[in-house]
Parts: sequence; C-alpha cells; structure tokens
Amino acid sequence: MKTTWDMRYSKRIQSMKASTIRKLLKFTEMEDVISFAGGLPAPKIFPKEEFAKACARTFAEKSEVALQYGTTGGYYPLRKYLAENNQLGMKFSPDNIIITSGSQQSLDLLGRAFVNRGDHILVESPTYLGAIQAWNAFGAEYIPAMIDNDGVIPEEFRKSLRYGAKFAYIQPNFHNPTGVSIPLERRKAIIEIADHYGIPIVEDDPYGQLAMDCGKVDSLIKLDSQYRDCGGSYCGDVVYLGTFSKVLAPGMRIAYMIAPTNVIQKINLAKQGADLHTATFNQVVVYETIKDGFLDEHVQLIRRVYAERRDTMLKALKENFRDGYSWTHPEGGLFIWATLPDHIDTTELLQYAVEEKVAFVPGMHFFPGTHKTTNQIRLNFSNANPTLIVEGIKRLLTAIEKYEKNTLTVKNLA
Amino acid sequence: MKTTWDMRYSKRIQSMKASTIRKLLKFTEMEDVISFAGGLPAPKIFPKEEFAKACARTFAEKSEVALQYGTTGGYYPLRKYLAENNQLGMKFSPDNIIITSGSQQSLDLLGRAFVNRGDHILVESPTYLGAIQAWNAFGAEYIPAMIDNDGVIPEEFRKSLRYGAKFAYIQPNFHNPTGVSIPLERRKAIIEIADHYGIPIVEDDPYGQLAMDCGKVDSLIKLDSQYRDCGGSYCGDVVYLGTFSKVLAPGMRIAYMIAPTNVIQKINLAKQGADLHTATFNQVVVYETIKDGFLDEHVQLIRRVYAERRDTMLKALKENFRDGYSWTHPEGGLFIWATLPDHIDTTELLQYAVEEKVAFVPGMHFFPGTHKTTNQIRLNFSNANPTLIVEGIKRLLTAIEKYEKNTLTVKNLA
Repeated sequence: MKTTWDMRYSKRIQSMKASTIRKLLKFTEMEDVISFAGGLPAPKIFPKEEFAKACARTFAEKSEVALQYGTTGGYYPLRKYLAENNQLGMKFSPDNIIITSGSQQSLDLLGRAFVNRGDHILVESPTYLGAIQAWNAFGAEYIPAMIDNDGVIPEEFRKSLRYGAKFAYIQPNFHNPTGVSIPLERRKAIIEIADHYGIPIVEDDPYGQLAMDCGKVDSLIKLDSQYRDCGGSYCGDVVYLGTFSKVLAPGMRIAYMIAPTNVIQKINLAKQGADLHTATFNQVVVYETIKDGFLDEHVQLIRRVYAERRDTMLKALKENFRDGYSWTHPEGGLFIWATLPDHIDTTELLQYAVEEKVAFVPGMHFFPGTHKTTNQIRLNFSNANPTLIVEGIKRLLTAIEKYEKNTLTVKNLA
Repeated sequence: MKTTWDMRYSKRIQSMKASTIRKLLKFTEMEDVISFAGGLPAPKIFPKEEFAKACARTFAEKSEVALQYGTTGGYYPLRKYLAENNQLGMKFSPDNIIITSGSQQSLDLLGRAFVNRGDHILVESPTYLGAIQAWNAFGAEYIPAMIDNDGVIPEEFRKSLRYGAKFAYIQPNFHNPTGVSIPLERRKAIIEIADHYGIPIVEDDPYGQLAMDCGKVDSLIKLDSQYRDCGGSYCGDVVYLGTFSKVLAPGMRIAYMIAPTNVIQKINLAKQGADLHTATFNQVVVYETIKDGFLDEHVQLIRRVYAERRDTMLKALKENFRDGYSWTHPEGGLFIWATLPDHIDTTELLQYAVEEKVAFVPGMHFFPGTHKTTNQIRLNFSNANPTLIVEGIKRLLTAIEKYEKNTLTVKNLA
C-alpha cells in the first residue's frame, strides 16, 4: 500500500537497483541447491573456539570498553596491531588506519569522501559488483579497463587513464569475479602509469591472504611506497582495503582501510555521520582473537581447505567440459571464471541450472560498461565441500545439455 | 603531507565538519574529568553475564549462521521478535522492520533514501546533532520548530510545516538535548497537523524505554496507525527508530527501523551499498539475550539506577544554583538541559569547566538554524555515579564563579 513516503524518495534511491547477486542468492539458498553463486567462506572453518575464548576474555576483562560507545576511528589496540603486523610486510602509523564495518563500508566511505555526481572511476572490466553499487549512490560513472589472465592490461590501463579519473579501482589478488592475479612486472607498470597521470589507486584486497600456491607478490601500496619517504607514516597514492571477512568470519563485519592520514581524517568525518563507529565489541573480540598471531596458523588451514576445493572443481570441469569451454586457474581466492561457447546465454542457462539444483552467477552482471559478455559465469569453490562440488559440476553439465537441446528445438521450430 | 588524494575530495566532504561533541569527548575523557558531556550509558549495568551466556549459546548452536554473511534486512528471528514484542504495544510484520548498525545508520539511510540536495527537513530546535550530521551529507536544509517544556509546540509545528518539508524529525520521549517529553494531547495535535499537510514523520525514540516516573504515553507511530487499517502490516506515515544501545549496550551497534514495507525495501537497497548487512553475530547475540523477556527485567534496573542519578543531579543543581538558573526535570532518558544567566557564554565557560575537571556540552551546538542560544548546557546524568555527580556539580559552580570573576575583571579593564 502506498503512503505519503512513496512520493518522497530521493533521485539517488530511485536510480538504485537491488543487487542481482543478492536477489539470486535468495533464490539459490534453498537447502538442496548446490550453490557456486555466492562468495561465502566455508562455515566449517570459522574459528569458533578461538572466538569463544576471545569473547570470554572480553567479558571478563574488557566489557566496559567493549560494550560502550567507541571512537569513530576504531579500537586503538586493533589499529596499532594492524599498523605493525599486517600481510603487506609494511609498517604504518595507527593514524593511517580506520576500522570499518566490512569492506563494503570502506567502498561506501570512499564514495562519500571523493565522488561527486558525474565523476569517473577507472575499474577493471569485469569488476566487483559491490563497488559499483556503492559508488552508484554518489552518481559515479565508470571507465572500464580490459583484463586478461594476468589481470588489468597496462596498455588498456594507460589508454583508459588518459581520459582522467578520480581514482582507479583494482583488485590485484585473485580478482572477483575472475580469480586472476596481476604479476609483479605488471604491478610496477600500473604504479608507474598511475603516477605519470597523477591518478590515485584504491587497492581492494580481500583475498590476498588466501594465496594457495604462489609466492607473495608485492602489493600496489608497497610498490608505491618505495617511491616515497613519509617518516613512519604512509603518505602515498594508494588506499588499501583489507578485511577479516575471509580470514576470520564475515558475520563479524570488521574490515580496515589504510591510507594517508589526511584521507583517514576525511573518511573518519564521513563515517561519523554514517554509523558513528564500528561495533566496539567486535573490534575487541577480533583483536583478542588475533593478537597472539592466530591468523598465521589459521590462514594455513583456510588455504589447505580451499586449495582442495579449487583443485576438485578444476578437475571436475576438465572431466566434464571439452572443446569450446575454458576457465581460469586461480592461485588463490574464492572464484573460477568460466567461458562457455558463444551461443550459450548464461542468464538463460541459470534457469535450467536452478531446475537441476545448481547455481552460479551469470558473468554479464560484473561488467560496468555497455560491453558485457553473455557466455561467462562465476563459480565459487569455497562454500561447498568436494563431494558437492563434483556433483554440482555434473548438474551444471546436465543443465547445459538441456539448455542446448531446448534452444536447438526452439530454433528448429522457428 | 599532501598526496594526490587531497586534491580530489568530494564537495560533500569538504562541507562536513567534525562533530563538536565528538571532539569535546576526546578532550574530556581524561581520567580525572567528571564528564556530563557524552550520552554514555552506565557501563556498570551492561548485562555482561547475559551477553556471555548468549555468546556461548551462539557459538554452541548457531555459529555457522552467526559468523556467515547475512541478508541485508537482518536476522529474521530478531525481526520477528521485534514485530511481535516491542515497547510500542503494536503488532507489525517482520517486513516492516530492518536491522541497522545503530540508530545513526538509520538516520543515514533515511537521508540516502529521501533527501535530495536542498530538501528541507523540519526539526525541533534544539535537536539531536547526529541527525543534522547524517543529513548534511545529502545536502539537507532545516526548518526549526521551537520547543518548550512539553516538547515541540503545535502552533510552531504548524507554522513551520506550512513551508513544506520532506519529513519532520521528532524525539517525543526524553528529547536529546533537553530531556523533555511531549504529552499525549500534543502528540495527537502533531499527528493531525502532519496529516493535514501530508508531511510524514520520523519518530526517533532511543530513550522511550527509560521512563522513570511517568506512565507510558502512546508513541506517534501508534497514534498515527489508529487512523489506518493496514491488514497486519504497518502502512502509516510515521517511521519509527528504535535501538538496543540504551537498553543493552551501544558497543553492539544494533538498532532497528519500523516503516511501511515499501520504505523498508528502499532502505534495504540503500543499506546494500552502504555495508551489505549489520553484523550477523551481534544480531544473533542480541536475539539470544532478549528472546525470553530479559529486557523487561533489565530496563527496571536501568530505570532505578538512572532515576537515582537524575535525582542526585537535580538535588545538587538546586543546592548550588539559585536565581537566574533553571533546568528541565526529565521523567526519563539521559539528559538535563540547564539555562544559565544571559551573560554566561557556555562555550567560553567550558574552558573554565575543563580546568576544574568537569565537562558538559554547550547548548548552542544543538541548534540547527541561525538562532542559537549561548547560555544553555546539556548535562548527562547516566554515566557518572551519584558521588561524582555531586562533586561534578560543585566543580561546575566553581567554574562559573571563576568565569564570572574573570569576565568581570576583563570588562572592568576594558
């Protein structure tokens, strides 16, 4: 029923659409569907014992801090820990760090602090949907830069940057949706090109710690900082987004942004109005969980479990699909990106897949511009166990066979 | 040090200023300062045992849900519980409810969904600063409506509404900063006037459950809903904001918005881009804490403790201050609003107060328009214990005496 509210929506919200993925997720979360659609971590390896111990310590020793209002910047011991112990092998000042309510909020706060209506942001094509959704709220437009199996192509990046951009948004490690990573030489080229055109970079790195079988490649923020001496505090051109969602648990909603102190101050202002501060309780619990080095050991476990699942999916793909099919071979992260024969429209295929009780995300949703492919899919391998992965890929084959048969029939009839 | 980021801020963020209160809080949180400045609950009565039990149950029985990504709308059992058990004595559909990361986020999401640059919002004068801060980000402007000891004055409300407004923002119970509440007859008048002009209302009610010695007065949403039959789902013109920050603990950041289902759907869209969803873990823990009726008993304790503190502060004010001083006598909530003699500028006074190790918030910060009083202060009585309250009010008197002596001297010299 319509109320007086319905005549009063902002222009902003009228132009917003529900995330297709989140709509799909509802659809595919029925008990008996094997879902390769979401980006969900494996719940079996959530560190619940360690969390339970950390909670007990928090209530015993720090309840008055943990349950009270906190500062907008975040719980100081957690910021200090991250400044000194991080996956980047760098030292920061705690003033280079703000704690956010998940990386989605980091993206939103960047939009608030930097995006005017009509501003252009350079993004990889395809790219992470949530970033587009966050920045659409502020009227951003997008310049897509093509990627290949080694991530964003420097020459494409250079061409796109020539038009100018507020900033460039890059996922260098196990990119969502494709799973590809950028090798060191390309990273250096990207930093040089961005520096040449004076365009800063947002480096989104939710999966960097989930490297399974590759050596650690320097992050963009590290490569950038080598050009500068900021005297103990970071003052470069890269803003780095990290999160505990993939290495601990997404239900805690604890992430962080690393940036020059001036930027952190502006982001702090934006966050004050948005939600005052991130839940103090969760920040204390996360700090209590990781402060003695637990993450080092826990990410080993995650890597082993996910490597097995990825290998299982790659093997199943190889056994079921032949000519005309190809897919990425990610060295970490959560996703494989598969390219199907041209004549398959994966949005139409999804209906057949759901009938066979298997789900994926059609690739077209990840393209920011008008150039969208229709024959690609994103497959998540972290959430289902190996047995289900094997079964799910078989069901996918069945769905494709039925789709092709039906499409052929329709064409013959036409 | 300036980076390329510093040349790229949005117009939005350039016009934002840090909350004066949050700056003050930093300043006054030194160990030996008795602070009446914040709006902090008493940490001694955070229900840490009940939370600890709820956490243990959550890890034992629901860890895979509590630690995983969740839906944007919020944890269904919590929404269902709120729909059926709430302080309003009303029944809602779970689809009338969205869980937010603190009421500050509810305010922000309302701004996203409803406020275009230049839109006018009717607010009480004075009003809650955080609302202004949230809506400034979207370019809102404000129409102030004067209040007295019974809250917003219907005739003022009518006059202000004639100019048109996107919505009206009202705190009917134990208003921040003044502590005053709106009696039933005025509430009815407000609903009628709003209905006449077709202006919807945001009812912000963080303190409604902290009524100490007054009977329960019907909420605006309840009065409004009596005009309508929505068939089990709410479809009226009031959006209600509730929170667990004051009845459980603010460090959990769990609040909720009750609104027509269409509005909830738009707010849901806005929240997807802002932070995907509120921490699942906290939602499950809060649900586990309250599901068997714990709140009913716990708010009794809070009311007793706060009533003692309020009475102590009122008595201390009466004993220390005479002619030319007046203050509100709130029947609940966290704040007393004191009016000092005209010649005292409370912003200047604050410096003397901090030297005496006592703090408050100067009243002028709560006025949205150009008409600001300079001789009022907001005093919080929930955070300090009775002994400290007595001592703090004495220190306040000393600060005023020193301020007056100094001001007099300066004037004589001039």
